Amino acid sequence: MTTDTLSPPPLLDADALIADMGARARAAAKHMATAPTAKKAAALKAGAQQLRAQAAEILTANAQDMAAGEASGLTSAMLDRLRLDETRLGAIADAVDAVAALPDPVGAEIDRVERPNGLVLSRVRVPLGVVGIIYESRPNVTADAAALGLMSGNAVILRGGSEAVHSNRAIHAALAAGLAEAGLPADAVQLVPTQDRAAVGALLRAQGLVDIIVPRGGKGLVARVQDEARVPVLAHLDGICHTYIDGAADPGIAVALAVNAKMRRTGICGATETILIDRAYPGPAAIVDALTAAGCEVRGDRDIAALAAHVTPADASDWDSEYLDAIVSIAMVDGLDGALAHIDAHSSRHTDAIVTEDAAAADRFLTEVDSAIVMHNASTQFADGGEFGLGAEIGIATGRLHARGPVALEGLTTYKWQVRGTGQVRP
Amino acid sequence: MTTDTLSPPPLLDADALIADMGARARAAAKHMATAPTAKKAAALKAGAQQLRAQAAEILTANAQDMAAGEASGLTSAMLDRLRLDETRLGAIADAVDAVAALPDPVGAEIDRVERPNGLVLSRVRVPLGVVGIIYESRPNVTADAAALGLMSGNAVILRGGSEAVHSNRAIHAALAAGLAEAGLPADAVQLVPTQDRAAVGALLRAQGLVDIIVPRGGKGLVARVQDEARVPVLAHLDGICHTYIDGAADPGIAVALAVNAKMRRTGICGATETILIDRAYPGPAAIVDALTAAGCEVRGDRDIAALAAHVTPADASDWDSEYLDAIVSIAMVDGLDGALAHIDAHSSRHTDAIVTEDAAAADRFLTEVDSAIVMHNASTQFADGGEFGLGAEIGIATGRLHARGPVALEGLTTYKWQVRGTGQVRP
Repeated sequence: MTTDTLSPPPLLDADALIADMGARARAAAKHMATAPTAKKAAALKAGAQQLRAQAAEILTANAQDMAAGEASGLTSAMLDRLRLDETRLGAIADAVDAVAALPDPVGAEIDRVERPNGLVLSRVRVPLGVVGIIYESRPNVTADAAALGLMSGNAVILRGGSEAVHSNRAIHAALAAGLAEAGLPADAVQLVPTQDRAAVGALLRAQGLVDIIVPRGGKGLVARVQDEARVPVLAHLDGICHTYIDGAADPGIAVALAVNAKMRRTGICGATETILIDRAYPGPAAIVDALTAAGCEVRGDRDIAALAAHVTPADASDWDSEYLDAIVSIAMVDGLDGALAHIDAHSSRHTDAIVTEDAAAADRFLTEVDSAIVMHNASTQFADGGEFGLGAEIGIATGRLHARGPVALEGLTTYKWQVRGTGQVRP
Repeated sequence: MTTDTLSPPPLLDADALIADMGARARAAAKHMATAPTAKKAAALKAGAQQLRAQAAEILTANAQDMAAGEASGLTSAMLDRLRLDETRLGAIADAVDAVAALPDPVGAEIDRVERPNGLVLSRVRVPLGVVGIIYESRPNVTADAAALGLMSGNAVILRGGSEAVHSNRAIHAALAAGLAEAGLPADAVQLVPTQDRAAVGALLRAQGLVDIIVPRGGKGLVARVQDEARVPVLAHLDGICHTYIDGAADPGIAVALAVNAKMRRTGICGATETILIDRAYPGPAAIVDALTAAGCEVRGDRDIAALAAHVTPADASDWDSEYLDAIVSIAMVDGLDGALAHIDAHSSRHTDAIVTEDAAAADRFLTEVDSAIVMHNASTQFADGGEFGLGAEIGIATGRLHARGPVALEGLTTYKWQVRGTGQVRP
């Protein structure tokens, strides 16, 4: 009797698997928390170098995923997200190098105060601990998320999508080799070794083992994570972003921003989905025409539909739709108050913008719109960690706690209070 | 047939009740978010004045609760927490006045950066929104929590314990009158009008209506809240705090800190529960004797028990016990490494302290101990928002997300990104 190496592995108890990974991650996190900046950077640079050196193996693994994806009927958009080539892999390695060059948030003093009794209190940034990342088809997330998690001194547990399983394993192996080269524990970046969905459930319930879960993917994934998780979640659900063209907008800026905010890339969460036009704005038709000329389907309310024959009438659901496509809904509103009311009712509180030359209107918009990112005379497509100077992002948070908007290194840290005394007792 | 005003109110649908309160809180939160500092402060000062003016009604209500508590057999400790008198009520009103005098966190700029493309990004503090507070017998929490929540621009939903129901209603009425006097919506501070436990469940599941839940009370309450909540929770479970006496500790300081950290007040979460003594420290018996002389029961490991006949031998459970009483567990450890290992295994990550004259040992302790508060040569009893200069605290968070350690006004805020441009489109 010979051993059949192709037989499926024995069924794992998902809770036991995650408990073991979590314990190893916790031990690794203790090392990472006090690892010097140079050592973390060296590990990432070595990982980037390994990604380049192991390009052939990684691309072979990706070809396996692509073949399986084609056979199982993935859409061409999904296959495109899954596909790696020399250029894309080079960009992934470069992104890891870029994270290695970012300032280390760990150990930074947030504030310091001396109390009248002589106690000196300082708040110092420390890593969150163990970060779980659950994501879908893009294999670059394996490298991006690991790099951000490690540079901020955390241990990372990754759980990628089934369709990218071979690519993810190959990328993970390169990063783990980089950690080992730098003398940091390879357990600081672990990949869940099974696609069994029970392992995701176990990860979501791993209170005490995992400090935060970051879901990256579509609405279905994020909703499942938010619903099942007992571990805190840093998530964004939708990007229903608005651009409001005020009566006092500069028409040239208004047209340029409307087109860029909607059409530069339609599939990102910062893309504008609804444009609101002040009834007092003089050139609404030019905005509709420019969008149409750029290849965008326009769905308008009654006033907008009256402007041009090529406008489709919007129905109620359009105001709550994240198209992620070359479609825009446009409504006419009664000035700033009308815009604020519409945004309050329909925004997903991700990113909303005003276009105006009226400074008072802009201030009111920036103050009163309760979204993670509010903009004046800028394209909502700028809602991105890289564009914000954070170097990279692990996601854009639309929740209110801990971190809001683009989340990068700082968002993966917390703080501790250090109190220094000379023997003070409390009266 | 006459109406019986003493008949119980009709059974409420808890979800409908909380949905209605949540919607009114959300509307009030919109007002509070942009209310000027002076107006919020005026509302709190008017509330404090109402607490003083309505002292007779409040004390009568409290007497009702006290009578019911005595009849139902509350312990004397519980009755003491419940009891109000002129002095205690005056202190509650003064505390509300003190919160009114704190700096307003809302609108403060956290940071600002100009990007190469001319976009100016700033992060500005904004309120969390709707804060739910679930607490037990102390009626002062009604005023403290409401004051902190309102001053930080939030709307507050309070759910106090059954035993304080009349006191809480009377205190709430005074605060609501203060809001009305200042022209702010009374719905900004609401008290759940039923003691039906289903209402707590509905509050814990009120995603989208309530932004954060703060539980204040014993372990049972906090554990239930953490288990059932679908809304984010800012909680602390235990305060198993350690004081480590290093071999290089000053003996005078060591004795004074050991006694103060344990015995000043034994019932607070910052009280030391375990003392670790370095085997190299010359005077362990003096520490045991000083604690015994102060009225503390000492439970020691084998080495400590050998020092004095009045030491009770500790069992394994002692190292994980939050006594909240005049009891301390003491272990002998092998230097700093031994202390770090013990704390890592047993600390609840609330507050831990080192006593030493060795600066390098202190630095290592402050860096490596992974607790919300770490102290050098200071009493763990200082773990308190007031002592930290925050003016007051809504609790001490031992979780890692959002806020850690004493939580006051800043911990009840989040931030938004304001982006100011001149028409920039993203390339």
